[in-house]
Amino acid sequence: MAKPTPLSGFPEFLPAERVVEQEVLATLARTFELHGFGNIETRAVEPMDQLLRKGETSKEVYVLRRLQDTGQGDAGMGLHYDLTVPFARYVLENAGKLEFPFRRWQIQKVWRGERPQEGRFREFTQADIDVVGRDVLPFHHDVEVARVMLDALSRLSFLPGLRLQVNNRKLIQGFYAGLGAQDTDEVMRVVDKLDKLAEDKVAELLVTEARLDEKQAVQCLALARICTADDSFVEQVRALGVEHELLDQGLEELAAVVRGCAGLVTDKVRIEADLKIARGLDYYTGTVFETRLDGFESLGSVCSGGRYDALASDGKVTYPGVGISLGVSRLLVPLVQKGVLAGSRSVPSAVLVALNDEDSRAGADAVAQQLRANGVPCEVAASPQKFGKQIRYAERRGIPYVLFTTAEGGHEVKDIRSGDQVAADPATWTPPTADLRPTVVSTGSTTESNGSTTDDQETKQ
Amino acid sequence: MAKPTPLSGFPEFLPAERVVEQEVLATLARTFELHGFGNIETRAVEPMDQLLRKGETSKEVYVLRRLQDTGQGDAGMGLHYDLTVPFARYVLENAGKLEFPFRRWQIQKVWRGERPQEGRFREFTQADIDVVGRDVLPFHHDVEVARVMLDALSRLSFLPGLRLQVNNRKLIQGFYAGLGAQDTDEVMRVVDKLDKLAEDKVAELLVTEARLDEKQAVQCLALARICTADDSFVEQVRALGVEHELLDQGLEELAAVVRGCAGLVTDKVRIEADLKIARGLDYYTGTVFETRLDGFESLGSVCSGGRYDALASDGKVTYPGVGISLGVSRLLVPLVQKGVLAGSRSVPSAVLVALNDEDSRAGADAVAQQLRANGVPCEVAASPQKFGKQIRYAERRGIPYVLFTTAEGGHEVKDIRSGDQVAADPATWTPPTADLRPTVVSTGSTTESNGSTTDDQETKQ
Repeated sequence: MAKPTPLSGFPEFLPAERVVEQEVLATLARTFELHGFGNIETRAVEPMDQLLRKGETSKEVYVLRRLQDTGQGDAGMGLHYDLTVPFARYVLENAGKLEFPFRRWQIQKVWRGERPQEGRFREFTQADIDVVGRDVLPFHHDVEVARVMLDALSRLSFLPGLRLQVNNRKLIQGFYAGLGAQDTDEVMRVVDKLDKLAEDKVAELLVTEARLDEKQAVQCLALARICTADDSFVEQVRALGVEHELLDQGLEELAAVVRGCAGLVTDKVRIEADLKIARGLDYYTGTVFETRLDGFESLGSVCSGGRYDALASDGKVTYPGVGISLGVSRLLVPLVQKGVLAGSRSVPSAVLVALNDEDSRAGADAVAQQLRANGVPCEVAASPQKFGKQIRYAERRGIPYVLFTTAEGGHEVKDIRSGDQVAADPATWTPPTADLRPTVVSTGSTTESNGSTTDDQETKQ
Repeated sequence: MAKPTPLSGFPEFLPAERVVEQEVLATLARTFELHGFGNIETRAVEPMDQLLRKGETSKEVYVLRRLQDTGQGDAGMGLHYDLTVPFARYVLENAGKLEFPFRRWQIQKVWRGERPQEGRFREFTQADIDVVGRDVLPFHHDVEVARVMLDALSRLSFLPGLRLQVNNRKLIQGFYAGLGAQDTDEVMRVVDKLDKLAEDKVAELLVTEARLDEKQAVQCLALARICTADDSFVEQVRALGVEHELLDQGLEELAAVVRGCAGLVTDKVRIEADLKIARGLDYYTGTVFETRLDGFESLGSVCSGGRYDALASDGKVTYPGVGISLGVSRLLVPLVQKGVLAGSRSVPSAVLVALNDEDSRAGADAVAQQLRANGVPCEVAASPQKFGKQIRYAERRGIPYVLFTTAEGGHEVKDIRSGDQVAADPATWTPPTADLRPTVVSTGSTTESNGSTTDDQETKQ
């Protein structure tokens, strides 16, 4: 075959780039499990009627067909485009065997049948956490999922800073209702355009499309402008003089999320009550989350979610849920492609076991197994070249140490970065922890060079 | 929606079952990395012309179509049915950026567009290791991949015993050629039927289809009967009196694999030179591998592979490879479904932090974060029920410890299995290592209850 070319929208990593993704996925998984979230994986396919329940995404589904299918068969299956639809189905299917509240993490690929175009992924990885209850789900789980994701993000110390932006649908819809708006959904839909349109244009649409008067429109924009890192937003909202029971509930809930997360905030990972966040097209009913990456705002939200009063329902029992989904590919593909993040080496090996001649391979294999028994990743040289060549073999792969067997049958290990070479017993020698496995290297350049991407593939799922 | 029913051929695990799979995947990944294999993931889709290169699998491909596609677009993409075709494509696409020999592991789902039927997977997970060279790949890598997989399997101590069966195409084809067979491929194809047909039937086919005389057929069957756990097969083959240069090469290579793996053999994980193994339909050119699970022989081979002289080629450069692929779903789904293997609990939490009342939730969250800082997975009770109910909440999930805050503000931890309760400082207390995370529990029953499955979904890929 001729040299194949990449498929637009299906990003793949080179081995050293994959190191970054592996580290991120492992850290997420570890953090989710520290918080008691269990893991599941769901099949890649769902029945088309499930995938098409949300009208908006129906255009973006990949439908499957068996190549030799004669008309029957697998018609009616498509690849999942998020992890929420399959999770809801899994909960209903296994409800009798699950313990509620059921807390799960799930990291899998999802697919969207987009037309090929710059900046659109057709295959990407998402990392989701959700808590789902049977009939009821206490509000404190809204705080919990925010805490878990903040904890996970703050452990990814090589990332640029992140802002978790929280709002509450009850708050904004209660406010609009308190103002006297007739169609609060429509008001929300218009206000949600603030990230695309200028304020005066949105004010105009609030009058023409959401049928508010000008004073009401001004009030809506004043609410949307409120953004605080603590619970002082409550006072600012109160100062606008609008009253409604739903608004009170929303204020209380949003304040609880911000206060509940305060202990996990760091210099780099922050939380904000941002009252313009609405996540317009999704069926959220309370808390909503979005997340911006400092210096990469044009990526849109890299981590989004919220509360659903009915994540799933079988007609008799309703399962409320709250969750948050990190767009792993959306976050990492640009950072890796721009060279902001890289793996420190292309292989896991910390040590290359050098080979004196081909006959000594069995001995070199035995030495390597001694190192592995102590958890040291290593490989034996592919061929007994001159030592200079074996060292360059290690160098090209980023392997920091080469272990030699001396003429007397002893062993010496060379740090090829410093050139230091010392005697070492393979049964006990281990490299410093920092060299044990590949690490993620950040160039520290945390501003995007190109701010043209403004797609909303995940922002408006 | 009504309660959904499972889709035939798309196995999914409950959380405690997924614990088994997580442990297997983590052990495989860790072992592959200890041996210096780097990780990659490839996209789920490949161009149809690549997927159809092997005629035999063309019936089993899932073709993709964008729901709103108007005839153009993604026509010509299908889901990969193994990890070898995408790996070969990845090597060609990135050849200029990879270091050869390139050693990689890859664990991903694959799909086959089978008609729904018992025992057939339409989605399953494979774990592959391969070493690929540019132009040449020394034979010792054949030994290496066998060693790595044996090492990985022997770390999965909860599995039933396994037999890695090795043979060599040069050996059998050299033998057939030395006998005077005209079409050695056809002889191999017929001998490969020994796992389905009786010996006398195969002898007949060797005469009618492979055009051997009766004496030659008897010799072929004598070769196929040879099976040894060490290199004594060499002598047994020599005793048959056939000579051919290719046979000599094959004998030498197979003996090297068996000897090279001897140090990794355990009571449970063994290696055998089994001269009837051929893997008839694949393009192997030397070493071939299959693996049987003790007591579950009817599953067929759970781990197969071999040497390809041309894993990939761009017309100018050829990339020889050797690899082995573990059918993770094929191995685990039956063991989990039959209850042979189970996870020790359904959540990662080792500790439930009990709640005195809802107002003390922030304090309980802080205690939980102290435990997590020491790597102890835990969760805070969902509601401040009576302690008896909170203990039962832990019990139902298999959480072994409950941590209480006393009226004086101190802490006590109860092992709910023994009932022992002792004072504990959440800043320093950790459970015994064995309780830290869910483990895989084996019932010790290692015989299948039902021997009817004889499909060859992975044996003849």
